[in-house]
Amino acid sequence: MRNIEILGFGTAVPKNTVEFDGQIRYRSADGETQLSLAVEACTNAFKNANLKITDIDLIVAASAVGIQPIPCTAALIHEAIALGTDIPAMDINTTCTSFITALDTVSYFIEAGKYKRVLIVSSELASAGLNKDQKESYELFSDSAAAVIVGKSDGAAGILCSVQKTWSEGAHSTEIRGGLTNLSALKYDGTNYKDFLFDMKGIQILSFTGRKLPPLMNEFYKANNISLSDIDKIIPHQASRALGVIMKRLNIPEDKYVDRVSEYGNMVSASVPYTLCKCIEDGTVKKGDTIMLVGTAAGLTINILVLKY
Amino acid sequence: MRNIEILGFGTAVPKNTVEFDGQIRYRSADGETQLSLAVEACTNAFKNANLKITDIDLIVAASAVGIQPIPCTAALIHEAIALGTDIPAMDINTTCTSFITALDTVSYFIEAGKYKRVLIVSSELASAGLNKDQKESYELFSDSAAAVIVGKSDGAAGILCSVQKTWSEGAHSTEIRGGLTNLSALKYDGTNYKDFLFDMKGIQILSFTGRKLPPLMNEFYKANNISLSDIDKIIPHQASRALGVIMKRLNIPEDKYVDRVSEYGNMVSASVPYTLCKCIEDGTVKKGDTIMLVGTAAGLTINILVLKY
Repeated sequence: MRNIEILGFGTAVPKNTVEFDGQIRYRSADGETQLSLAVEACTNAFKNANLKITDIDLIVAASAVGIQPIPCTAALIHEAIALGTDIPAMDINTTCTSFITALDTVSYFIEAGKYKRVLIVSSELASAGLNKDQKESYELFSDSAAAVIVGKSDGAAGILCSVQKTWSEGAHSTEIRGGLTNLSALKYDGTNYKDFLFDMKGIQILSFTGRKLPPLMNEFYKANNISLSDIDKIIPHQASRALGVIMKRLNIPEDKYVDRVSEYGNMVSASVPYTLCKCIEDGTVKKGDTIMLVGTAAGLTINILVLKY
Repeated sequence: MRNIEILGFGTAVPKNTVEFDGQIRYRSADGETQLSLAVEACTNAFKNANLKITDIDLIVAASAVGIQPIPCTAALIHEAIALGTDIPAMDINTTCTSFITALDTVSYFIEAGKYKRVLIVSSELASAGLNKDQKESYELFSDSAAAVIVGKSDGAAGILCSVQKTWSEGAHSTEIRGGLTNLSALKYDGTNYKDFLFDMKGIQILSFTGRKLPPLMNEFYKANNISLSDIDKIIPHQASRALGVIMKRLNIPEDKYVDRVSEYGNMVSASVPYTLCKCIEDGTVKKGDTIMLVGTAAGLTINILVLKY
């Protein structure tokens, strides 16, 4: 076990919500930005942890889409919450599962003594990239941010095991093609707006996930000598309304996993940490619980991580 | 020491060069892309290492600017070189020093046994974002890629020490403001093209680096009980023609550091690994040498890493 524990956490959502068929989605308005949501989540995490920025020795931004192409998102968050300090800032990105990858990565830093307390923040302004003509994605995503502060544990809490796999057959199932070097923003001419907006092939992703996740999960159980009965609660990426279908395919009973897609939809990289924070807040996850974070990401990437909270 | 060694390396530059005052710069043409350069560098690295893709268990893309906003750059490189495998792919980004951060990060993975052999690739198509009106940056940057395969060493090679610091007073000294959530590509209207292009305040960065790097370097020497005399060769980020000024400020003699700015300029994140690869190739760096990788990045971030090669 890599001995880390969650010292504090915070979330942020825009004030505005919209509703589709009874499904609530958060959408920013009036100057709410990816940065402002990140800052609000961090501020709440510091309050929750009773820590201040100078107690932190690494800031990790774990978002799918950045604030600017340059500098990295963590540097811009640093400017808002850590100006005047020399705390290192870095981005880690595996799209929707960036938080899981970041948590896993920093656990090696903490275990080795490189850093003592790390702030991981996932923030997304999905609404900035949604295409009204693509109903399945337009009605699915929410804007939000979640921040988690992790530090060394005394051995009671930690990461038991984790795995990541990427199958690039799915590299174009979820995309924003334009805005960086592949298709410069300067090529935007009004007619090609779809190339600069989020594009998701939901059925394709669902079918691919249905094929890849169950054998990976079985392999993961076997390799780490654990079983479903060792897990108290599963916090999946709130990928879509088909979450239940995938959980059923994994033989996970309804009371074992958290499905809040109707409450806030898919928050991209913020989805897993936001759901984790909300579950800690409302008591769904309690100290001592063994929880599994699991998600699919554009790539197509799957991450699974088991944490003793 | 974290016992890792470089098992192979490869580089790629566009066929086309341009010249400004005797300074050579590489600029892509005819379908050369960030991805094609990355793939060429990886192919060369595999040849050099006498390894194949299935010998790798993690692909890290360590670029400042990505290929697409979604998915992450590593997933797109995966599609080109690892399709059909399930090798995990992730991005690590600290802008120009992304390679140093990635090398440092994966050393913890390798040391802990999480991954055996990791491919790190930095690729940049700087020319896609240069502003002709800003002479100091327009005449400075080159397109290129560099790939390095690292694995566990027998104890003869490894990372001796490393540090990263970020001072966000410099967050806007080097920027591309538009293309992601801060300023959507859909806001491009022809008149605001500067917001979607690279913008560098060279004097500001130089002055900031001149203030921050010397005390950090001294602190680094002291904290790790090393001195300049322990280092055989310093491979700095080829940040600008003022490289010599900064090296002088650090009291580093001319024969101790590598300055190839006139040969290829600033290659953004590919700058450090490209220079490292070229130095290994031409014998400037030899097996057993103790080398220092050091660079400044947008953020403003500074990374220093000492590697026994």
